[in-house]
Parts: sequence; structure tokens; C-alpha cells
Amino acid sequence: MTPVLRSYSHDTWQEGGGPARPLRDAATGEVVARLPATGPDPAAMLDHARRVGGPALRALTFTQRAAILKALARHLSDHAAEFAELSTRTGATRRDTAVDVQGGIGTLAVYASKAAAELPDAVVLADGPVEPLGRGGTFAGRHVLAPRLGAAVQINAFNFPVWGMLEKFAPAFLAGMPSVVKPAGPTAYLTELVVRRMTESGMLPEGTLSLLCAGPAGLLEGLTAQDTLSFTGSAATALKLRTHPAVAGRAVPFNAEADSLNCSVLGPDVTADDPEFTLFVDQIVTEMTVKAGQKCTAIRRAFIPAALADAVTEALAERLRRVVVGHPGRPDTDMGPLAGLEQREEVRAAVAGLAAEAKTVFGDPLRVDAAGADPERGAFVSPILLRCDDPSAAAPHEIEAFGPVSTLLPYTGLDEVAAAAARGGGSLAGSIVTADAQVARTLVDGLAPWHGRLLVLNRDDAAESTGHGVAMPQLVHGGPGRAGGGEELGGLRALHHYMRRTAVQGHPGFLAGLA
Amino acid sequence: MTPVLRSYSHDTWQEGGGPARPLRDAATGEVVARLPATGPDPAAMLDHARRVGGPALRALTFTQRAAILKALARHLSDHAAEFAELSTRTGATRRDTAVDVQGGIGTLAVYASKAAAELPDAVVLADGPVEPLGRGGTFAGRHVLAPRLGAAVQINAFNFPVWGMLEKFAPAFLAGMPSVVKPAGPTAYLTELVVRRMTESGMLPEGTLSLLCAGPAGLLEGLTAQDTLSFTGSAATALKLRTHPAVAGRAVPFNAEADSLNCSVLGPDVTADDPEFTLFVDQIVTEMTVKAGQKCTAIRRAFIPAALADAVTEALAERLRRVVVGHPGRPDTDMGPLAGLEQREEVRAAVAGLAAEAKTVFGDPLRVDAAGADPERGAFVSPILLRCDDPSAAAPHEIEAFGPVSTLLPYTGLDEVAAAAARGGGSLAGSIVTADAQVARTLVDGLAPWHGRLLVLNRDDAAESTGHGVAMPQLVHGGPGRAGGGEELGGLRALHHYMRRTAVQGHPGFLAGLA
Repeated sequence: MTPVLRSYSHDTWQEGGGPARPLRDAATGEVVARLPATGPDPAAMLDHARRVGGPALRALTFTQRAAILKALARHLSDHAAEFAELSTRTGATRRDTAVDVQGGIGTLAVYASKAAAELPDAVVLADGPVEPLGRGGTFAGRHVLAPRLGAAVQINAFNFPVWGMLEKFAPAFLAGMPSVVKPAGPTAYLTELVVRRMTESGMLPEGTLSLLCAGPAGLLEGLTAQDTLSFTGSAATALKLRTHPAVAGRAVPFNAEADSLNCSVLGPDVTADDPEFTLFVDQIVTEMTVKAGQKCTAIRRAFIPAALADAVTEALAERLRRVVVGHPGRPDTDMGPLAGLEQREEVRAAVAGLAAEAKTVFGDPLRVDAAGADPERGAFVSPILLRCDDPSAAAPHEIEAFGPVSTLLPYTGLDEVAAAAARGGGSLAGSIVTADAQVARTLVDGLAPWHGRLLVLNRDDAAESTGHGVAMPQLVHGGPGRAGGGEELGGLRALHHYMRRTAVQGHPGFLAGLA
Repeated sequence: MTPVLRSYSHDTWQEGGGPARPLRDAATGEVVARLPATGPDPAAMLDHARRVGGPALRALTFTQRAAILKALARHLSDHAAEFAELSTRTGATRRDTAVDVQGGIGTLAVYASKAAAELPDAVVLADGPVEPLGRGGTFAGRHVLAPRLGAAVQINAFNFPVWGMLEKFAPAFLAGMPSVVKPAGPTAYLTELVVRRMTESGMLPEGTLSLLCAGPAGLLEGLTAQDTLSFTGSAATALKLRTHPAVAGRAVPFNAEADSLNCSVLGPDVTADDPEFTLFVDQIVTEMTVKAGQKCTAIRRAFIPAALADAVTEALAERLRRVVVGHPGRPDTDMGPLAGLEQREEVRAAVAGLAAEAKTVFGDPLRVDAAGADPERGAFVSPILLRCDDPSAAAPHEIEAFGPVSTLLPYTGLDEVAAAAARGGGSLAGSIVTADAQVARTLVDGLAPWHGRLLVLNRDDAAESTGHGVAMPQLVHGGPGRAGGGEELGGLRALHHYMRRTAVQGHPGFLAGLA
């Protein structure tokens, strides 16, 4: 990391230009680094990726690419302590850093091992069997997947500066496309450090990774159908990108993963004495406090049986009272600050919107104690639990407070739940906490059309559960509608975003040699 | 068919309103039917499809849906003569009708038989294996595919009033989504007739098929992430739909298949005495004349070795001279008229654009003899062959004349070809005519990133080849960039456009029962 962040283009670190804005320590407000307004010419950056990086990657087989990712994951693991130290400045506690840094490196490693085990030592993938198209056996068709010839442009969100980059880079690299990464401003310094270590490793072929530490101007205008554009961030920005004249006009493959109003449902079978009751309460506290609730997958809406509403409210308030908010570097801190003061203003405004239709049952958005830190200079905010007993209220289904904020929504019949969950307009992740398989099945069927991922949690799987909010590399991550309508990860499915499927027709003898 | 076309909404035929515009016989200019300006309320039509059609379909298993499609294909075959008669009025010769009517019914039948053979007697599809997520075996993940809960809106093109509807309807129906079809004006009367026979059959569950014979106003505004929108037509309209506030704003799954500047390449190995020479010439004549060249997949650019340029030009001109242009109902007619006079004006304008950079070597866009018809009242146009010896010319790669128009483009080295083909910005179909497997492989590798489908044609497979322009139900149909960036057909792959993939996590015992 440099005091003024640099961009990595043409396989060299390059200084940006224009006024550089300060990026501040989330907990102290100190300036960590500065982000220049402009970087190297994005058109030239894209050109280099396409002209040098693409051919270099396409010359390697899947097996060779997997071996590079595996070595790279090991190399990054060796630098984990350095990353963790800088990660603290983004507001990340040790637990948060595990999700972002170790989670990101782990995603690289899973992709490396899946590719080594499941992909051929070849450059083209067969997709499905050869389909006979003539009775005489002289004519047939088959599908092949080959990498797109352009650059995989990746516009990332501030909340996962490491994982967010690596979970897109890994499948693009494996598929054979060079990555051009634009990190979000507030935490770009951590991405810059990790990219520095990646490129210093000497493991990456030239042109396969570029980094734009600057504003996005010029990054989209030159995109073509051979490039791809992946985005993680707000639904509003996703809409802007999706309708950008270059993106829409040239049918650039576009994938969006936007924040969403994820839900968790406590089954009607659960009583206050069941282990599922505690699992549900614990999971909400976890989702509210990990990354200070700054996760696209965090639980925003908790549907609870009306009969248990007071018991859940009390149990949660009791648990939230014990949450230590403080400097993320302190070992006893449970929850660090938000990424910055601007984010805190947004959360406070969203909470005000929610409070118009819901009762605040824990926390004050304007007041918090911060252990080992100044709660005004750092972007600290209390966990905020709301409760909305009016099933016709709109705010809980429409307003996302991107922080440690959840709303309890009592329900009376199971049939209400799927319809109420659907009012979020499409979500990334939902969870169902029940010991009753029939309840689980009913809710899975009802919630699936609105969700990219569903977790069924109970006493049988809790010990090994990876949790509501964690996007696993093996499973798809994305959601319909408001959540962006896209799909990432899902194991080797993710490679398809970076490859084109082509049907080839001809003599079966020729087709056999294609892949 | 009624004199003023009706729409099918709420499982009844309903009259439209507003001024009705005449739809004319392509060959005679007589009025065949009239298309009202407005139809039944599209919002109510969508609501019925979603509320009645969706649940009815989702209550059936894949096997049951396949059985309905199979019976429906048989039922439509019984009406083939009636469809063929009306098809003639769209300008279709007997050969053209085979592609549209028999091709459409055949696509239904292929989907029915593929589904019966390859899909389970169930309502949810498993996608990939169960993925263990914990070492103790108590936690895992798997993906399931279930139908989206909305309506599959299908906006079709004028050139395939039957096939264009059925190739979208079949996979939507199998997937479990009701179809709302909007045919293109000029040939909507044929679609109306086929839908009439489909609904009269009593085979379709209520609400599973609706037809809007009117303008598109109001069809898009209410779309949500549970609906889908498929479009076949021009790149300009595709862009409008893609960026429509409802479509982009709610991340409605959108698929476009637009016309494109498809190419055919004659290999450098071929001599004028080889069978591949004749195959190449014959195929170009076929692609120019079937449907009077009004196929999104027709060959617009023919790349030929410079050494053979004159021989190919002469052979083609000789063949084109023998093409009988005339009334599509006459048995000796090789090529009928365009769909209408408006289409002819567009073709003439496009030919003028091409002629600015290419030499016309056969045909006059303003003059043609039409056997058994008045060439001025009918939309007749001569086949037009152009030749462009200037490799830097832009027009052949940018201007699509949607009629019986192709341009010969001589090349000197094989390495030029992929780059020149790419100047079309993405195409649906390409063909490679060569007896040299190495040439074929080089061209497949070079052309694949720019094409949805590639045909390798030679003496070994020609007898059974389905041809350059025919989209087979087993193979994907679509192309990058200018061709729309979408994908249709491809066998059961097409069902994925109408289903949502959801990752479900839980105890392996629970997951096993999901699909």
C-alpha cells in the first residue's frame, strides 16, 4: 500500500492523478491512504488485459490455471497476518477478517482444488453429450465452452475488499479471462495490498490482473460483447450499469449482486425450550454483528411466530446487551465500527425510515459506547433491533439499513410467511430454523423462487452449519429482482459467466476431437 | 382467424379496440386480416397467466407436461394443411412453410420426447450433486431448479409466425411457466390461427397460453423478477426492451435473439472441382432464397479464397439466374416475396448502403419478374449478390439487408477470416465449408467466440446436414453482441431460462428428499 493508492496496469504500478480523497480508519478517523480521482487510462488497461492477459491465460490448460491458483492461495496465506493488520483499519474485528481475508483465500483454494479435480487438462470444455442429428450417423452437434476474448471487469463493494475481489477473480482466471478490478473507495487500500502481493508473487501470467484505484470514469465506455461486467453493490448502481449505453447496447454479459432484505424464519413448531430457539436467536445476533451487519446476506427481517414474539424479543435484547462494541483491534470486541461516517449516516437515515413503522426494541442509532475508541470519530453504531407487529407495514420490506439492524416480524400462520418474504422483491439468502421437516419443506418451496440460497438450520446440522450469511464457493450466490438477478460462485458453474457456449455441427469424427 | 384479429386472454377470445390496421397478403397486397391497435388489458392478461396458468402447470410433473406437448404436436400436425394454406399469404413457399410450420411442430415434438426421456416425473429438478459442507456428514448443500412464479412474455418476429412462437412456448411450458405471446403485426394472423387450434384442443391447462394481437403498450410496465421476457427481432428494439425501466429496474430475466451478419467461409483447401465448392455455392443460394432471405441466421457475408473469387461469383450468378421468383402458392416457385412492402423498402435501402462499398454482381433491387404475381403489388425482390474486394470496407460488416441479399468477401490468408468475421460484432450462425480438418479446427476456434452456432460442412456430412440456417431444437440458438447476447433452445438447457436455481443448505437427509 502506498500513501496515495496506485493502480496496476500494463503489469506495473502506476500513479493516478487529480485530487486524492482521504480514506479513513473506520475506528479512529485517521487517514489510512488517499484515493486519486483518476488512474491510468482504463481503455489502455482493458486493451492490455485483452491483448496480453487473455492470450497468456488461454495458452494454459485448466489444470495449469488451477495449479497457479493453488500456489497463489498458499502465497497469500503466508501474508495473512499483514492483511489482517490492515483489515483492522477497515473496521474489521478478528472474526470479520476471517470472513473477508481467510474467506477470500479459502475461496481461491476451493476453486483451485475443484478445478484440479473436475476439469480436464485442456483449454476447451465440452458441454453435454454429442447429439446425433442424422440417422446415418454422419451428422451431429455438440456444445463447447471457450473463454470470451475480452476482459472480466469487476466492480466491487466496500464491505469485502479481499473476498469480493478473489471470489470473482478465481473463476474468471480459471475460465481463461483476465480480470480488471475496481475496488470500492473506502477500503481500496486493502485490495491494493493484496493485489500487490499477488502480482509480486510472479505467479500470474502478464496481463491477467489489473487494478483501477480511482473513479470508474472510462471503464465502461469501451466494453464489448467479448468482455464481461460483474458488479457487487447497491441496486441503484446496478441499474445504472445495466442500462449504460455500452453495456446494454453491445449486450455485454452483466452480472449484479445487490444488497437485499434477507429473512430468517423461526418455525411454528419451535418452543422457547427447543435448541432451535437458541440457534435462531444466536444466528440473528451473529448476522447483526459480523462486519457490523455490513453483509449483503445479513438478516434484515426475522419472521417469528406471534406466540413467541415476546420471548424472542427479550432473548435477543438480552443477547444484544452483552455485545461489546469497540475498536476492532481489541480482542474482547464483538463488533467494530461501520466502514465510515458516511455509511453511519446512511444507516441512521434507514433506521429512521424503519422506525416510522416499527418499534425500536434495542439500541439507539445516535448513541453507543465504543470500547477503546471515540464513538464520534469512529463510525460506531449500536446494534438496533426493531419490531413491527403490523403485517401491512411497508418499511421493513423496502428499507435496507446496511448495518447492525434487524426487524422482528411476528406472523400467525405459516402461509403468510412466503408472501411476506416475497415483499422484499428478491433476496440473496434466507434461513429457516425448524426441527419439523414438513415445515422446512413447505418454507423451502415457498421461499425458493425469491432466494438464491436457503439454509435449513436445526439441532441436526447446526454443529457443522456454515451459517446464514456466508456465501460458500460451492453454492450459488445471488438472488432475483432487487438482489440483482445475478449469480456468482456455485462451484464450477461460475466459469460459465466467462465462457461462451457454442454449438458446433459436423461429422461426429470431427466433433469428437473438439473438446 | 377472424377478419379483425382477436386476443386470447382469460381463456377466451376477446376483441381488441382502436383503429385496426390492414395486414396484407405478401404476394398480392390483398387484405388478409386487420390488427387492432389495442387488445385486452395486458396487466389483466399477465395476472391471469400468473394466477391461474402458473399454478395449473406447476401442479403437473415434467412427464405430464411432456405428454401434453406430445399430444399437442400431433393435434397441430392434423391441421398442417390449413396452416400451410394461410402461411402462403405471408409469402411462404411450400419449402418456407416446412421451415416455419413443420419446423415449429417438430420443435414441440422434440421437446416432448426429450422431456419424456430425460426429465423426472417430478416438479423440481436437481442441479448437480449434493455437496458436502462439513466433515461430519451432517451439513451439505445442493441446487434445485423450480419454475419462476410469473409469466413468460414472448415478443416474436414476423418471419416465423409459427416456429417463433412454438420454440419459446415449448420450453416455457415444460419448465412450468405460462406463456404470454405477442406476435409481430405483419404475420400475426397465422399465429392467431395456430393459437386457436392449440386452445380449441382442450389440451392446455387454463391460463397457460395467452395471445396479444395488438400493440405492445402495457405489456412491460408490470413485469417483475418472477416473469421473463424473451424477444426475437431487431437489435434496436432489443436495446429498448433491455433498458426499459421495468425490465432493467426489476432485473427481469431478459433474452434477446437479434438478426445478425452471419458468415459462411469457403476453406482455402477447396478447388472449383471439389464437392465442397458446390456445397458452398448451393448453401448460399439456399440461404438467400429460403424465406426470401428473411432469416436471422441467413448468410450475409460469404468469405471466399481470393483465388476462387471469380469462379464462385460466376457459379453463384449462374445459379441465381435459375431461381424462379413468384407467387408462393405456385409449385414451381423457388422464392416468394418478402413479408410486405415496408420490408422491401428496408431491404432496398440496405442494399443501397451495401452498394456504396460493394459491387452488385447479380440482381437489381428495383426490378424483378414474379411468376404468377404482380411484382409491384406484392413485395417481390430479386436475389441480390454483391462482391466487396476491399477488405477495409465497413458496410458488409455493419449493414444487414433482411432479404435475399449476400455479399462475397474474398480473403487471401486464413488468419484474416476470424478477424473479419468478428467485425460483424457477434452472430447467430456461421458455417465453414472445407474438407481439411485442420482448417475446420482453426476456423472453429477462431469463429466460436463470435457465434452461437457453427456448422462444418463437407462431403462427409453434407447428405445429413441440416444446413447453415436451421436452428435445431437440440442446439443453442443465439449469439453474442449484436446478435442479442442471448440463448434459446439447446435442448433442455432452454428450461433454465424459466426456472430459478436455488442453493439449499441443510442436513443431507433433508436435502435428499428435495428433488
